[in-house]
Amino acid sequence: MLQTRIEKLRKTLVEKSLNGLLISNFYNILYLTGFKTLTDNEREAWTLVTSKAVYLLTDSRYIVNNKLLILKLITPEKGLIKHLQEIVTEEKIKKIGFEGDDLKVSELNRLKEFLTNTELVPLERFIIKIREIKDGDEINNLRTACKIADQCLDEIAKTVKVGTSEKEIAFKIDFWLKEKNYDLSFYPIVAIDKNSAVPHYDTRGGNNERVKKSSIILIDYGAKYRDYHSDTTRMIFVGKPTDEMMNTYKTLLSAQEKTIKQLDFDNNPVSVDQFCRQQLTNNNQLLSYPHSTGHGVGLQIHEFPKISFTSTDVLLPNQVVTVEPGVYLDGKWGMRIEDTVLIKEGKQIEVLTKFSKQLLIIR
Amino acid sequence: MLQTRIEKLRKTLVEKSLNGLLISNFYNILYLTGFKTLTDNEREAWTLVTSKAVYLLTDSRYIVNNKLLILKLITPEKGLIKHLQEIVTEEKIKKIGFEGDDLKVSELNRLKEFLTNTELVPLERFIIKIREIKDGDEINNLRTACKIADQCLDEIAKTVKVGTSEKEIAFKIDFWLKEKNYDLSFYPIVAIDKNSAVPHYDTRGGNNERVKKSSIILIDYGAKYRDYHSDTTRMIFVGKPTDEMMNTYKTLLSAQEKTIKQLDFDNNPVSVDQFCRQQLTNNNQLLSYPHSTGHGVGLQIHEFPKISFTSTDVLLPNQVVTVEPGVYLDGKWGMRIEDTVLIKEGKQIEVLTKFSKQLLIIR
Repeated sequence: MLQTRIEKLRKTLVEKSLNGLLISNFYNILYLTGFKTLTDNEREAWTLVTSKAVYLLTDSRYIVNNKLLILKLITPEKGLIKHLQEIVTEEKIKKIGFEGDDLKVSELNRLKEFLTNTELVPLERFIIKIREIKDGDEINNLRTACKIADQCLDEIAKTVKVGTSEKEIAFKIDFWLKEKNYDLSFYPIVAIDKNSAVPHYDTRGGNNERVKKSSIILIDYGAKYRDYHSDTTRMIFVGKPTDEMMNTYKTLLSAQEKTIKQLDFDNNPVSVDQFCRQQLTNNNQLLSYPHSTGHGVGLQIHEFPKISFTSTDVLLPNQVVTVEPGVYLDGKWGMRIEDTVLIKEGKQIEVLTKFSKQLLIIR
Repeated sequence: MLQTRIEKLRKTLVEKSLNGLLISNFYNILYLTGFKTLTDNEREAWTLVTSKAVYLLTDSRYIVNNKLLILKLITPEKGLIKHLQEIVTEEKIKKIGFEGDDLKVSELNRLKEFLTNTELVPLERFIIKIREIKDGDEINNLRTACKIADQCLDEIAKTVKVGTSEKEIAFKIDFWLKEKNYDLSFYPIVAIDKNSAVPHYDTRGGNNERVKKSSIILIDYGAKYRDYHSDTTRMIFVGKPTDEMMNTYKTLLSAQEKTIKQLDFDNNPVSVDQFCRQQLTNNNQLLSYPHSTGHGVGLQIHEFPKISFTSTDVLLPNQVVTVEPGVYLDGKWGMRIEDTVLIKEGKQIEVLTKFSKQLLIIR
C-alpha cells in the first residue's frame, strides 16, 4: 500500500515539474512511510520523496525498519539542512515542493538561506487531498474503528444513571477503549442538559454536570484503531423527554438520515450542507447549527472533504465522511446526531457507525 | 496575572517598534488570555494584542467570559482577515509582529495579500521565551502537578508484579489520574527489559513486554494540573538486579543529583549538559545518551530553557526544568532518572518531583 501511495505521489510531482517533495506534516509522513514519531508537533521527522528514493530524516532515538526508506540520521552535528544539501547535490534537484500549509515561516526562511540553488515551491492541501480517497486498508481500519465505538457506547450507555457525571461517562469511554488497547479518537464531548446547547462543549473544562431524573445527554466520541478515527454522536434521554424534545429529535433524525441518502446522488458538499439545513425547519423557522454538516475522517479526525457551505471539495467514492446536523437551544438544551459513513463505488452509502438512532430513553 | 503578562508583552512590543502582535499558537493564546480551544492544531482562535486592546478572534461554538478581551466573532461571512483589516484601519496600525515559528507559510501569504498597508514582522521564540520564567500561579500549578505525579507512582508501583505488561502500567497511570480529574502530561513511556534501552520507546506501538521474575522497568510519565505538566522518570527492578545494573544505577543517580546541584551556581546550560555527561564515565568510557540533559516544563511538556550542548539559553530564577540523564545499552537494557526542578531566587534548587530515587526493588 505504501508503495502505491508513493507512486501516486510521484506521478503528481512529475505533472507539477517538481524533482522532489519535502514533507513536514506528521500525518502525511505516517501516510506515506508508515513511520510515526512520539509527538505530532515537534518535528521529530521529515520525509523527502524524489524520483529515486524516499528519505526519512529522523534521530537516533527512533528505530526504523522499512526497506522502502533510506534513513538519514539527524544528529546535533548534521541536521536536516545538511542532509538536504547533500541529497539535492547528489540527485541534481532543481525544484522541490514543500507543504505550505504545514511548514512554518521561519522553517522556510532557513531552507531558503541554505538551499540557494533550489527553487522551493509551496503546495497547499496536497497530500491531504490525496488522503481524502481511502484505500482498502484504510477502509478496513475505519470500519473496525466504528465497530469498536459502537460496542463501547453499547456498554457504557447501560451504566448511565441518575447522579452519573459528564466526566464519569467520558472516563468510562476512555477506560473501555484503552483497556482493550484501542484509543480515543478525541476526548469525548459529554454534555448534560444546558451544556448540550454548547456545540463545542469542553467536558474537561466544564462544570461536570450530573444526570438528573429528567435529563438530556449528548455524547460525541470516537475510537481509534491502527491510527484511524471514528466519529459518532448520540443522544440519551433520562426520564420522559418533553414533547418539544421528542419532536426536535424526530426532525433532526429525519434530516440526518435524508442527508445521508442525499450523498447517494449529490456530489456537491455545498448543496448537501444546504439540503440538510433545509430539513431542519420548525414552524418555518430554520433551526440552523453553527458548524459544518460533516467532514472527512481518517488518520485525523478532521479531514477532507468538508461538507459545508464554503466547501470546494467534490464527494467521491471511497471517501469517509461524517454527517452531523444539530439543534442548539441556547441556555436550554441541544442535540446532535452524527454518523461516520463510507461513500462507495456506484455512489452507494455504507453507514459505518451502526449504534441505534432510535430514541434512547433511560428511566 | 493575565494583565501582568500582557503588560510585559506590550513593553517588549514598544521596544521592537511594533503596533501589535498576532498570536496564532494555542499555548501562547492560553498563556496570555486564559482562553483554550478544544484542539491545539486547528486554528480555532487567534489573538491580536495592540497598545489599546487584546482581541480574541474565535467562532460562536465558544463562549468567552473574560473582560480583559474584546471578542471578535469569526463567521463564514467574516473571517480572520476581515476582522484584522478593520482593527488595523481603526487603530492605524502600521507594523504587526507575528509568530514566525508558528504561522504557516500559506497563512502568511494570505495575510500579506490582504493586509497590504501593514508591515508584517516575523518573531521567533518570542512568547515562549517570556514563558520560560514562571510566575507564582504557574509555579504553584507545577508544584501541584509534580505532587500528584508522586502520589500516582507511589500507588501504581505497588501493583507491579510478574506478568504485568507495559500497557497495563501505562493504563493504570492514565486512569489513576483521570479518575481524579487530572490528566496525563503525555502518554507514559513504560519500557521493560530490552525496550528500556530505546530512549524514546513507544509503549502504545511496542510489543507490550511483560514483567518477568527478573526485570528492569523504566517509567517516564507526568501529571497535568490546570494545564501545567510534570515530568518524572523512575526505574523499578524486579528480582535481584545484576551487579552491572546496580553499579550503573548508582553512577547514574550520582550524576543526576550532582547535576541538579550544579544548577545552583552554573547558569550555562551547555556546561551543565557537559558536566552531567562527564559524570557518566565507566572505566574511562563515556556512557552518553542520545538526548538532551533537560528541558523547561510548563504549559507544554517541552519548553525553554534547553539543557543541551546546542542550547543558547541562560538558566535563571523561576525557571522549571527537568534533569534526566540516561544510560542505554543497546539490545540489553537502559536506565533514566528524571526530576522536574525549580530554580529559585538566590539560585537555590527545589526538586518538585519527590518520589524516592533509592533503588526500588520488587521481589
